[in-house]
Amino acid sequence: MNDTDYMKLALELAKSTQGQTSPNPMVGSVVVKDGAIVGMGAHLKAGEGHAEVQALTMAGEKARDATIYVTLEPCSHYGKTPPCADLIIEKGLRRVVVATLDSNPAVAGRGLTRLKEAGIEVEFGVCQKEANELNEVFFHFMKHQKPYVTLKSATTLDGKTATVTGKSKWITGEEAREDVHRYRHIHDAILVGIGTVLADNPSLTTRLARGGKNPIRVVLDRSLRIPIDAKLVQDQEASTWILTTEEASMEKQKDLEEYGIDVLRLPDDSIETVLALLGTKGITSLFVEGGAEVNGSFLKARAVDQVITYLAPKLFGGKLAPTAIGGGGFQEVEDAIELEIKEVTTIGKDIKIVSHVKGSE
Amino acid sequence: MNDTDYMKLALELAKSTQGQTSPNPMVGSVVVKDGAIVGMGAHLKAGEGHAEVQALTMAGEKARDATIYVTLEPCSHYGKTPPCADLIIEKGLRRVVVATLDSNPAVAGRGLTRLKEAGIEVEFGVCQKEANELNEVFFHFMKHQKPYVTLKSATTLDGKTATVTGKSKWITGEEAREDVHRYRHIHDAILVGIGTVLADNPSLTTRLARGGKNPIRVVLDRSLRIPIDAKLVQDQEASTWILTTEEASMEKQKDLEEYGIDVLRLPDDSIETVLALLGTKGITSLFVEGGAEVNGSFLKARAVDQVITYLAPKLFGGKLAPTAIGGGGFQEVEDAIELEIKEVTTIGKDIKIVSHVKGSE
Repeated sequence: MNDTDYMKLALELAKSTQGQTSPNPMVGSVVVKDGAIVGMGAHLKAGEGHAEVQALTMAGEKARDATIYVTLEPCSHYGKTPPCADLIIEKGLRRVVVATLDSNPAVAGRGLTRLKEAGIEVEFGVCQKEANELNEVFFHFMKHQKPYVTLKSATTLDGKTATVTGKSKWITGEEAREDVHRYRHIHDAILVGIGTVLADNPSLTTRLARGGKNPIRVVLDRSLRIPIDAKLVQDQEASTWILTTEEASMEKQKDLEEYGIDVLRLPDDSIETVLALLGTKGITSLFVEGGAEVNGSFLKARAVDQVITYLAPKLFGGKLAPTAIGGGGFQEVEDAIELEIKEVTTIGKDIKIVSHVKGSE
Repeated sequence: MNDTDYMKLALELAKSTQGQTSPNPMVGSVVVKDGAIVGMGAHLKAGEGHAEVQALTMAGEKARDATIYVTLEPCSHYGKTPPCADLIIEKGLRRVVVATLDSNPAVAGRGLTRLKEAGIEVEFGVCQKEANELNEVFFHFMKHQKPYVTLKSATTLDGKTATVTGKSKWITGEEAREDVHRYRHIHDAILVGIGTVLADNPSLTTRLARGGKNPIRVVLDRSLRIPIDAKLVQDQEASTWILTTEEASMEKQKDLEEYGIDVLRLPDDSIETVLALLGTKGITSLFVEGGAEVNGSFLKARAVDQVITYLAPKLFGGKLAPTAIGGGGFQEVEDAIELEIKEVTTIGKDIKIVSHVKGSE
């Protein structure tokens, strides 16, 4: 095994924690001595030990003169835990291999500098691209202080989300629907418009065979039309935040608050204002599940970073059958949101397409 | 090389003639003696020699005691050419390997029987599935006396064929558009509605760098609204058939006929009637390029056999932006046309999906 192999293992360790480290990044680490792995670890949860600490604890005395692989630059500052760079120096490692830099520009590179000054051999940039992609959401949040937005749609191959009479159960198969729950699990929050709540009364929870974390459920509802008996109000399965405006009734707000619902009044209900608010509340990733009007608003605001498209092998036809992204749309071809296709796969009988919005980072 | 390898070569020879053999099937043949290929051939054009004749001519005296591979059962009847089974017997071959049977149920198997009766060893079914798929269009036409219908659509990833203001140039990239021309080349006819002619004034010809055959251009135009100065009327690039009804003016018909246009009056303009007419005129394959209303009519008539979908990595959004398949559409999810995905590939920056309508054969 060479540096790349060990780093790939560290990346796998990091990836296994997807959905549980927010607002921290996923980080993995491997300690190798004389060609044998003597320690491995990952950052499991915000507030708990960093990946290097876990791996060095496992290595114990064997850390001396060993090589440590870390997917993200070891920290050099006191946060909730002491600096990892200091721990590496103290444990007497000979060599440190790092995939990518800390995303915080104020401290990026400092960890590496401290290690070098302590006479430790530092190798930088092994699997850097993969490491950056792994924590795309984290880096995006650090840069913009706003959540990374993933828009999901599920349509027939002719782009319809329902028949002309509004029938939509089911378009995609079980495997694709389960995949959607995996996305809910890894997102901090999920967002729908009040139209979807009124039409479908969804629970927006994560239902996976192996369990899974529920995202915070965010509803855009400018005049608080959400019924008190909606699942999102009643089920206590996960936090529900209702984003509304000054035009909403105070009485309705109090009724909702009695059920433990957070009602947040915004100066306006533009997507920009919504994302800024979610950013201040530490939401690093947002999964937008529509409906068409809300999707259209995110599109027009150019506030989408990633698009997950499920296409079912069916044709509904119909000029008036609804599509996934409604609203006003763009008028000119040149104004369209341009995507880069990242992945095209089949999932059950359906097709799944993962694409990134060009220019988003 | 074994039987499968030689048959695959014969299938390749057959496939190379795609677009030039209609209404005949594509057929390839290879003659092998003492482990060496001594003859190969393909049926190039209706009215010209069958594949076996070509391959046996190349083999000459070496055909004696050799093995011949043919993708389709050798014929046993006098058509435009004498029966190939007789030629194989006369040339003294020892063994015949056949992929699939003649599609005409009245004669299927007779060629093999004749060969066996002459004492020739017959092996049947090598690469049968591939051979059937290769001539799907031909077998479909023989069975139904109606063309095999391929519906093409090109949309953004959110299913739109144009922006809300009707802008659509260009949605897909050059590679995808060139691929469409390859489909035009291999189809007997291409069909659009009068709406598309009035909106886009298309030429519907095959424009490939290496040339290519133009399909017959069929326009559904129930009241002969096509302008005399339309490219389809003026350009003389390929035959144009206008399918109309009794409500069309005789005067307009005569004007069009002066330009060599065929005006065909039908009792009604239902898709069933249209396909039956095209079948009697020997059109084995029909490429439907819309627009949305015509596509919707084919869908509702359940007259589609194959769907080619190009998806561009773009999002237009817009509740009122047009989609590829319009018309009334289906009301219930259970009524939807069910597809089987055959192929998902990227073509340039776009995605191409080939799917077959379930139950079509």
